[in-house]
Amino acid sequence: MDKPYPPLYYTDYLQLDTLLNCQSRKSEEYGDPAHDEMLFIIVHQAYELWFKQILFELDSAIALLSKDPVREQDVGTCVSRLQRITEIQKILIDQLRVLETMTPLDFLDFRDYLFPASGFQSIQFRLLEIRLGLESDTRLRYNQAAYHSRVSPEHRDLLIENEQKRTMFGAIEHWLERTPFLEFGEYRFWDEYRVAVQSMLGRDREVIENNPTLSDDEKVQQVLELGQTEEHFGAIFDPDRHDALRKDGKLRLSHRATLAALFISLYRDQPILSMPYRLLAGLVDMDELLTTWRYRHALMVHRMIGTKIGTGGSSGYQYLKSTAESHRVFRDLTNLSTFLIPRHALPELPDALFRRLGFAHQADIA
Amino acid sequence: MDKPYPPLYYTDYLQLDTLLNCQSRKSEEYGDPAHDEMLFIIVHQAYELWFKQILFELDSAIALLSKDPVREQDVGTCVSRLQRITEIQKILIDQLRVLETMTPLDFLDFRDYLFPASGFQSIQFRLLEIRLGLESDTRLRYNQAAYHSRVSPEHRDLLIENEQKRTMFGAIEHWLERTPFLEFGEYRFWDEYRVAVQSMLGRDREVIENNPTLSDDEKVQQVLELGQTEEHFGAIFDPDRHDALRKDGKLRLSHRATLAALFISLYRDQPILSMPYRLLAGLVDMDELLTTWRYRHALMVHRMIGTKIGTGGSSGYQYLKSTAESHRVFRDLTNLSTFLIPRHALPELPDALFRRLGFAHQADIA
Amino acid sequence: MDKPYPPLYYTDYLQLDTLLNCQSRKSEEYGDPAHDEMLFIIVHQAYELWFKQILFELDSAIALLSKDPVREQDVGTCVSRLQRITEIQKILIDQLRVLETMTPLDFLDFRDYLFPASGFQSIQFRLLEIRLGLESDTRLRYNQAAYHSRVSPEHRDLLIENEQKRTMFGAIEHWLERTPFLEFGEYRFWDEYRVAVQSMLGRDREVIENNPTLSDDEKVQQVLELGQTEEHFGAIFDPDRHDALRKDGKLRLSHRATLAALFISLYRDQPILSMPYRLLAGLVDMDELLTTWRYRHALMVHRMIGTKIGTGGSSGYQYLKSTAESHRVFRDLTNLSTFLIPRHALPELPDALFRRLGFAHQADIA
Amino acid sequence: MDKPYPPLYYTDYLQLDTLLNCQSRKSEEYGDPAHDEMLFIIVHQAYELWFKQILFELDSAIALLSKDPVREQDVGTCVSRLQRITEIQKILIDQLRVLETMTPLDFLDFRDYLFPASGFQSIQFRLLEIRLGLESDTRLRYNQAAYHSRVSPEHRDLLIENEQKRTMFGAIEHWLERTPFLEFGEYRFWDEYRVAVQSMLGRDREVIENNPTLSDDEKVQQVLELGQTEEHFGAIFDPDRHDALRKDGKLRLSHRATLAALFISLYRDQPILSMPYRLLAGLVDMDELLTTWRYRHALMVHRMIGTKIGTGGSSGYQYLKSTAESHRVFRDLTNLSTFLIPRHALPELPDALFRRLGFAHQADIA
Repeated sequence: MDKPYPPLYYTDYLQLDTLLNCQSRKSEEYGDPAHDEMLFIIVHQAYELWFKQILFELDSAIALLSKDPVREQDVGTCVSRLQRITEIQKILIDQLRVLETMTPLDFLDFRDYLFPASGFQSIQFRLLEIRLGLESDTRLRYNQAAYHSRVSPEHRDLLIENEQKRTMFGAIEHWLERTPFLEFGEYRFWDEYRVAVQSMLGRDREVIENNPTLSDDEKVQQVLELGQTEEHFGAIFDPDRHDALRKDGKLRLSHRATLAALFISLYRDQPILSMPYRLLAGLVDMDELLTTWRYRHALMVHRMIGTKIGTGGSSGYQYLKSTAESHRVFRDLTNLSTFLIPRHALPELPDALFRRLGFAHQADIA
Repeated sequence: MDKPYPPLYYTDYLQLDTLLNCQSRKSEEYGDPAHDEMLFIIVHQAYELWFKQILFELDSAIALLSKDPVREQDVGTCVSRLQRITEIQKILIDQLRVLETMTPLDFLDFRDYLFPASGFQSIQFRLLEIRLGLESDTRLRYNQAAYHSRVSPEHRDLLIENEQKRTMFGAIEHWLERTPFLEFGEYRFWDEYRVAVQSMLGRDREVIENNPTLSDDEKVQQVLELGQTEEHFGAIFDPDRHDALRKDGKLRLSHRATLAALFISLYRDQPILSMPYRLLAGLVDMDELLTTWRYRHALMVHRMIGTKIGTGGSSGYQYLKSTAESHRVFRDLTNLSTFLIPRHALPELPDALFRRLGFAHQADIA
Repeated sequence: MDKPYPPLYYTDYLQLDTLLNCQSRKSEEYGDPAHDEMLFIIVHQAYELWFKQILFELDSAIALLSKDPVREQDVGTCVSRLQRITEIQKILIDQLRVLETMTPLDFLDFRDYLFPASGFQSIQFRLLEIRLGLESDTRLRYNQAAYHSRVSPEHRDLLIENEQKRTMFGAIEHWLERTPFLEFGEYRFWDEYRVAVQSMLGRDREVIENNPTLSDDEKVQQVLELGQTEEHFGAIFDPDRHDALRKDGKLRLSHRATLAALFISLYRDQPILSMPYRLLAGLVDMDELLTTWRYRHALMVHRMIGTKIGTGGSSGYQYLKSTAESHRVFRDLTNLSTFLIPRHALPELPDALFRRLGFAHQADIA
Repeated sequence: MDKPYPPLYYTDYLQLDTLLNCQSRKSEEYGDPAHDEMLFIIVHQAYELWFKQILFELDSAIALLSKDPVREQDVGTCVSRLQRITEIQKILIDQLRVLETMTPLDFLDFRDYLFPASGFQSIQFRLLEIRLGLESDTRLRYNQAAYHSRVSPEHRDLLIENEQKRTMFGAIEHWLERTPFLEFGEYRFWDEYRVAVQSMLGRDREVIENNPTLSDDEKVQQVLELGQTEEHFGAIFDPDRHDALRKDGKLRLSHRATLAALFISLYRDQPILSMPYRLLAGLVDMDELLTTWRYRHALMVHRMIGTKIGTGGSSGYQYLKSTAESHRVFRDLTNLSTFLIPRHALPELPDALFRRLGFAHQADIA
């Protein structure tokens, strides 16, 4: 602090005179004050504050990952930002318990006043989905209507505008595609990996066939499933099949990016891959927590209104529940586990590549 | 302590010499020690300890609720036991985070040694489901196999034997059916309630029809949904239709018990209904937390093994996810919210009944 | 909804256009934007939103407990409000983890701009302490200064004005003092209790004297401590000694109120005492969680600034840590455990009193 | 799985027939079964299982950090192990809420049977303290007795034997002391740092003197405190003063290790320091969570037994509370925040050193 800054007062800094005057109960306005409406307002406002923070972190991480090239220390920064987001998400989930201290009967004291307002209209939540990379045409439709059918025209424009921007999914995919280590001299990661996988799948088949606790029918069933797993692997080995699955909406991440993510996951013990691995794990954490939140939120709505229509006219909880699974942006990263092979079966890296993945300091010593 | 008890030593009391020697890594036995197998064992053992505690509380609550009549103070005791169970369930959910500190790659270091053991074989978890009241024939089948197809013969017998016992669902239903306050002199709860509901449903229909933000198609859709709600109400007003829905598996709780649960929910402010209401709410809490655990557990399995077959040969996470919704024992209690009506629309109780629902001390004063 | 209400929009209802524009980073204003200042602002705003909600619940509970007489169903309502407060408090504690994703080095990027603003200036937190019943003259002084020495004159007036109002401590004490069941006909609770206690203390002394694992010195020490316990009991049996201890600041709750709280704790299984017991337990929960928050907050401050002076000029964490213990408002309720006696030693209630503590419905049957 | 392993059964793998038969209630043995004793046993057993896991992780991390030199990828492994420990610690803290579902009155139903067993006798907890690096002679004494005065002779031997082993504190100190980057060519970290600090302290003094909200007395007080901060800095600049403070027990970490920890904290954005920084932060996390657990545990004991003597003869909660603060092993790492300087005031690293802290891959490109 080289020059003196004017003294600051806590209340002014946080704009509390404004912030703490944004809670106005409709039930009170209509002359019939319902105690629990205050909680309802404040819980939702707390959610919106946190959504703002998550968007702030997300935007910053997307920007860092959109540089070309991405600076190595920025990968660490992105990991920290994702960890912050996941800490916030835990709060988001736990806040549902606070809302559930309102009983369904208490909700009825003011529910009619809120019509047709609905959490479906949370612009920040929609932005959050968009910024992560949820695509408009893969969204579940609610009552045949587009997700932004019930927001104001200016909000609709804002959402559509944001759909044009680079998303976290896009940034990560692009960053993965540029990973330089898949080819190095004569080394081709995918060739080494394919050999290792084929030997592993052969072992898995033996495991099933020699399992004395399985009936013949069960064996048939499981060999069938193993066949499906081989299908997936097939796509990993064959860029064309991979692209076909992408067109069908069964995969989303590009073939190159998928290979890179796999390489990082398998060789994460190498210093230069350590943070990239934590970045991918952070995305899966975030995805899992968002999915958990969606599911828990659906349970809360179910409990609160049963099978009735929601305040915004939604039958609600069944729709919400199905988004938990269908709106996962980073599913392909979670599914990477399908393609892992045990460390002991992992092909060794060529020595020169191995050294490049280490620290300059060590290389120097060596 | 009137007579002296022999002095007790912490280690002996908790049988730690035995308890802390139950962790034996298969990977170590096979000469290839995998660090993370210790975590895998201890997490599962912690789960089993908690399952034992939950079963202990559950058995005790079922016993108290199976007395005839149920003693009023025992209702409070059952509420406390359910609260204990729900506190434990929060731990069960959070423990998944501990398990997720094991990465999918680390799991592969010892996964093959465990074949075909599987969490499907947790007898205590099966008992827990049975004691709650999950019925064998409403269970989802996994690969066409009964839920107890993969446990030892003696465990299978134990499970089948337990299916004969009184469950929490059964005890609650029976207790609800005996609630004495639905009829009192000329008062019939359901008649009063029906009048109030019909007026409320009329209002809801108006809300939809006058909603300027809905298109005509949406209105048709929502009126359709309201029609479904009226169907449910129909069943509440008509014991025969209720029984038909039960036969179809769409409802489970008897008509009489459902009415009683509704009465308790609506008039919970009366002293004698205060604990019964908290008991019903506690069951919904427990059901919601179990559902949340099932879902989170499925996400963890997905993350750990992707779409591969599980250690017990299960394709796993899809099956686990679907049990979250389909294995809810107390769904009818959650759905009660559908039938609530706002306090201002609630029919008043006859004065003599009102007094009976209060404390003797007050009645005396009055 | 008998008349139509104007349709409501989510964004307007929650005043999000205002709420989400209250985050203005000083570091940005001074041309040196620090990423983490946004988190710093939003975490503190989330705290303030929750403080508002806690105050809202607290005010309502105090009002209900200040009626004369307190309505029995309102005791249940107060229990629910306390449970809501404690659920919020868990969020308050967990939010510290979110703040701790900001590292001490990142805090330095904007800390100087905030001078001399400080959490010490949170008016709502001060109000919360005051409404609970923390007395101005028992507060720890920070640097010899009164707790309101660093707030604006109008805030100071507001705090002093609120010190005049009925507090939760005052309301509870007054409510306890009016408990009608301590005397009933010839029955005097304290006489029965005293006999039971004296027999229990005799047993405790034996336990120490016959403990083979204690050295003679240890026995002397423990008998000394038992003597101190007897001192406390002495005060419970002797209103004058109790009042003397209150004057010394060692006790706070009046003798009559303490006896009533003890009666409720010991006979909580009686229906009419069930909610009052949960009310007392709820106060202890709240007190414990506030104490935990204070302590955790102090640890966070310690971590963030080490032993440096705080943004408001406070050396901070040592002071904060000591308030955890010294600012407990309901310590006397926690200490009640000292005076409990095992159920088997509990004097039986006279039959007529026993019946008065039950429900009218049962009395009627009997 | 190249050769077939014998099929494994879940119950056998987890040794559940043994594990689930280790719960034997004393109250039942003495013919007076107390329901809540089961919870008491199982909670403590769950703690002991987790303690075993924490010790397992701790031992492994100490071993990795005791190699010479420490392998870079092992630093990442240690970070992961600490993160696992901290996830477990969160469970340990939350489990207290489960135990608190037992009321003080319910505890009295079986408390006498347990005498003189006590949590003080948990060998694993003592080992945990020892392995972390808590030194015998800095422990608070309880009733003038050594911490191992109440355990069996063979346990005492085990504890004393373990006091001789390398601890986490020792391993970290030794690892820090070997950090090679403090001197590089003509560069001396401490010289650069000293200049930067002196300029910062000068600014802090100005901040106090020009603070219009402080009275003259307050300024005197704060300048005094600033003086104390300068004292600490003095020690950082002067190895002899540092050693003198260590002898007085005011500091514990060696001068060289402290400088290295500071270097890592200040330059953590450099790739090679990224994991070391996370390791130090992980130790502070663990220390903070252990401290929080100690404090919360003390609150729970207070609530359960008031000011009475504990089952092991301890007056308990006051002692427990004071260990929270006094038994912090990594306090010097937490206090490092005192010595941080803002990024903009951070001296730049010489170019050649900067490059050595990066990845080989980048160096190669450059």
